[in-house]
Amino acid sequence: MRIALDAMGGDLGPELPIRGALAAITDRDDLEVVLLGPRDLLERQIAEIAGSDSRVSRRLGVEHAPETVSMDESPVEAVRKKKNSTIMVGFDLVRNGAADAVVSAGNSGATMAAAIRKLGRLPGISRPGITSFFPTLKKPVMIMDIGANVDCRPKHLLQFAIMASSCSRLLCHIDSPRVGLLSIGEETGKGNALVKETHALLSASGMNFIGNVEGRDVYRGDVDVIVCDGFVGNISLKISEGLAEAAMQMLKTEIMKTLRAKIGYLLIRKAFRSFRKRVDYAEYGGAPLLGINGTGIICHGTSNAVALRNAIYVAADMVRHQVNESIIRTLREYAS
Amino acid sequence: MRIALDAMGGDLGPELPIRGALAAITDRDDLEVVLLGPRDLLERQIAEIAGSDSRVSRRLGVEHAPETVSMDESPVEAVRKKKNSTIMVGFDLVRNGAADAVVSAGNSGATMAAAIRKLGRLPGISRPGITSFFPTLKKPVMIMDIGANVDCRPKHLLQFAIMASSCSRLLCHIDSPRVGLLSIGEETGKGNALVKETHALLSASGMNFIGNVEGRDVYRGDVDVIVCDGFVGNISLKISEGLAEAAMQMLKTEIMKTLRAKIGYLLIRKAFRSFRKRVDYAEYGGAPLLGINGTGIICHGTSNAVALRNAIYVAADMVRHQVNESIIRTLREYAS
Repeated sequence: MRIALDAMGGDLGPELPIRGALAAITDRDDLEVVLLGPRDLLERQIAEIAGSDSRVSRRLGVEHAPETVSMDESPVEAVRKKKNSTIMVGFDLVRNGAADAVVSAGNSGATMAAAIRKLGRLPGISRPGITSFFPTLKKPVMIMDIGANVDCRPKHLLQFAIMASSCSRLLCHIDSPRVGLLSIGEETGKGNALVKETHALLSASGMNFIGNVEGRDVYRGDVDVIVCDGFVGNISLKISEGLAEAAMQMLKTEIMKTLRAKIGYLLIRKAFRSFRKRVDYAEYGGAPLLGINGTGIICHGTSNAVALRNAIYVAADMVRHQVNESIIRTLREYAS
Repeated sequence: MRIALDAMGGDLGPELPIRGALAAITDRDDLEVVLLGPRDLLERQIAEIAGSDSRVSRRLGVEHAPETVSMDESPVEAVRKKKNSTIMVGFDLVRNGAADAVVSAGNSGATMAAAIRKLGRLPGISRPGITSFFPTLKKPVMIMDIGANVDCRPKHLLQFAIMASSCSRLLCHIDSPRVGLLSIGEETGKGNALVKETHALLSASGMNFIGNVEGRDVYRGDVDVIVCDGFVGNISLKISEGLAEAAMQMLKTEIMKTLRAKIGYLLIRKAFRSFRKRVDYAEYGGAPLLGINGTGIICHGTSNAVALRNAIYVAADMVRHQVNESIIRTLREYAS
C-alpha cells in the first residue's frame, strides 16, 4: 500500500507532513508513503528529521513536484496552469499505478478538480463530493456533501447517500448504515424543495433511510450518514468549528476571572483535554473525496502530524476495503 | 404599552408565562401584559402565584382564548380551524388596537401564519421572516431568516437584510449595522446561485454590506446582521444548539471520570454558569417576526420565565422604537 502525501499543502510547510508520514510508516509495516514536493527541499528536511534510518528510507519516498497550489487560488486555474503541482503529480501517480491514494491538506477545491481531471468519475456518479466525520455523543457520523457541490439536484443527494453509506459500512463496520436527510423538521414534507424531492427518492431507494434529521440531531449520534447539499454541509461544518472555538474562548475568559476557578481549571485540565480530543477533527483523519475513480483525502490546512497520519490510515483503509467497488455495486442496486 | 403573552404556548403550561409576565410588570412600570388562554384556568393560576396584589391586577389582564395550537400542528390548518386559539386571539387584539404586540412560545409556523392572516404584510415586503440573536465573542449578531422561508429568491434575502438592519439599528443601537451574507467562502463569487445573485443586490443596495461571511465567522461577532435563507438559517441555529448541548454533555462525562476533576468542577462551577448564561438563548429575548404589519415575537417551547420576560421587553422595544416604520422607510431607500 502506497499513499502519496502532499508535503506542501498545509499552512506550515513540509515538516508536519514528514512527521505524519514517519508516524504512519513506523506504526504500520504494510504502508509506504511518497511525499510530494520539491525534491531537494524534502530530502534535506527528511534527513534533518529522520536521520539516515534505513527502515525509513525504504518506505518513505519523494516524488518531485516543483509547483504548489495556494489556498486562495482558483481550482480551475490551478489545474489548468500548474501541471507540476503536488496534487497533479499525486493523482498522476495514482493513475499510473505508482500510488494507491493521495492525501492533501491544501486547496480542497483544487484537489477535487485535480482528482477529477486525472482519474475521472466513478461510472454512474454525476457529482463527486466530499464527506467528513462529525463527532457525536455516540459514534461519529459521516456528512456528505461538505462543500464540493453548492447547487444540487435530488439525484445528487441520492448518490451522496449511496457513496457515504458504502464508506460508513466499510470504514466504520456498520452493516446497514442509518441514513438521515438534513432538514428543518423531522416530519416528511418538512424542508425546502430539494429536500422534499430527495426524501421521496431516498424512501424508494431501499436504503436504510430513517427520514429527516434536524440540525440539533446531528450531534446525538442516532444516525450513521447524513446527506445534504454542499452549501448546507459546508456551513454546518464551519459553524460547528466556529462555535466550538468561540465557546472554548468564552469559557476560558470566565475561568480566568477568579483565582478559585483558575485552580479548578488545573484540576479539570485533563478532562478538558480528553474532551477536546473527542471533538477534534484531527482524530477523524480528514475528509474522503467520494465518486472519483481512485482515492483521495483532503485535510484541514491546519492539520498536525497526527491528523495527517490518521488521514493516511483512512486512505489505506478505503483502498483495502475497496470502497469504490462497493459504491459502484450499491449504485446499481439502489439507484437504477 | 400592552403586550399579549400566549400563556399556553410553551411546553410547560401557563405557570412560566405567568411568572414571566409578573417579572416584566414588576420590573417596568410602563408595561401591561395580557395573558392569552382559558380564562378560568389563568385566573386561578394567577391568584395562586401572585395572590391578590393590586399592583398586579391593575397591569396583568387575561383575554379568553379557549383553543391551543400544539407544536406539531400544521400552521395552515391551525389558522383555518382554530379561530379562538391563543395566537389568533392575540393578533386580533393587536389588530383592534387592544394590544401592541404578541409574544408566544408555541408553534412558530402557526404564529407566523396567524400574524400574516390577522395583520398582513408591511407594504413592499414579499416574505415576512424570523430573525434571532446569536451570541458571539463580541455583541450578539442578528441572523435572518431562521426558518420561515425555506426556498428564497435574491429579492427576499435583500429584504431580510433591510428588515434585520432596521431591527439591529433600533434595538442594539448600532448606527450603520454591518451586513454579511452567509456563504462558503469570503470571496465574491463563492456560494450557491442564490448567494451569488444576492451578493450583487446587496452590493448595489447602499447598505453597509461587508460581503460574504463563512460559518466559522458567525460566532466571531465582526458583523451585526447575517442574511441567509430560512433553511440554512434554521439548520445553523439548530446545529449550534445541538452542538452546545452535546459538548456540555461530553465535557461532563469526562469530568465525572475522576475525583480530581470532580473537585475541580466544584471550583469552576460559577464560571461555567456565567458561560452558559452568555450563550443561553433565553437571555436574548426570543425571535422577532419581521415584515408583518404589527409586532410579534416567538420563543423556544422550553422558554423559562426569564426568557419570556426578556421577549416581552424586546416586543415593547420594537413598538417603542417603531421598527416597522423604519423598515418601510429603509425599504424605500435601499430597494427601490
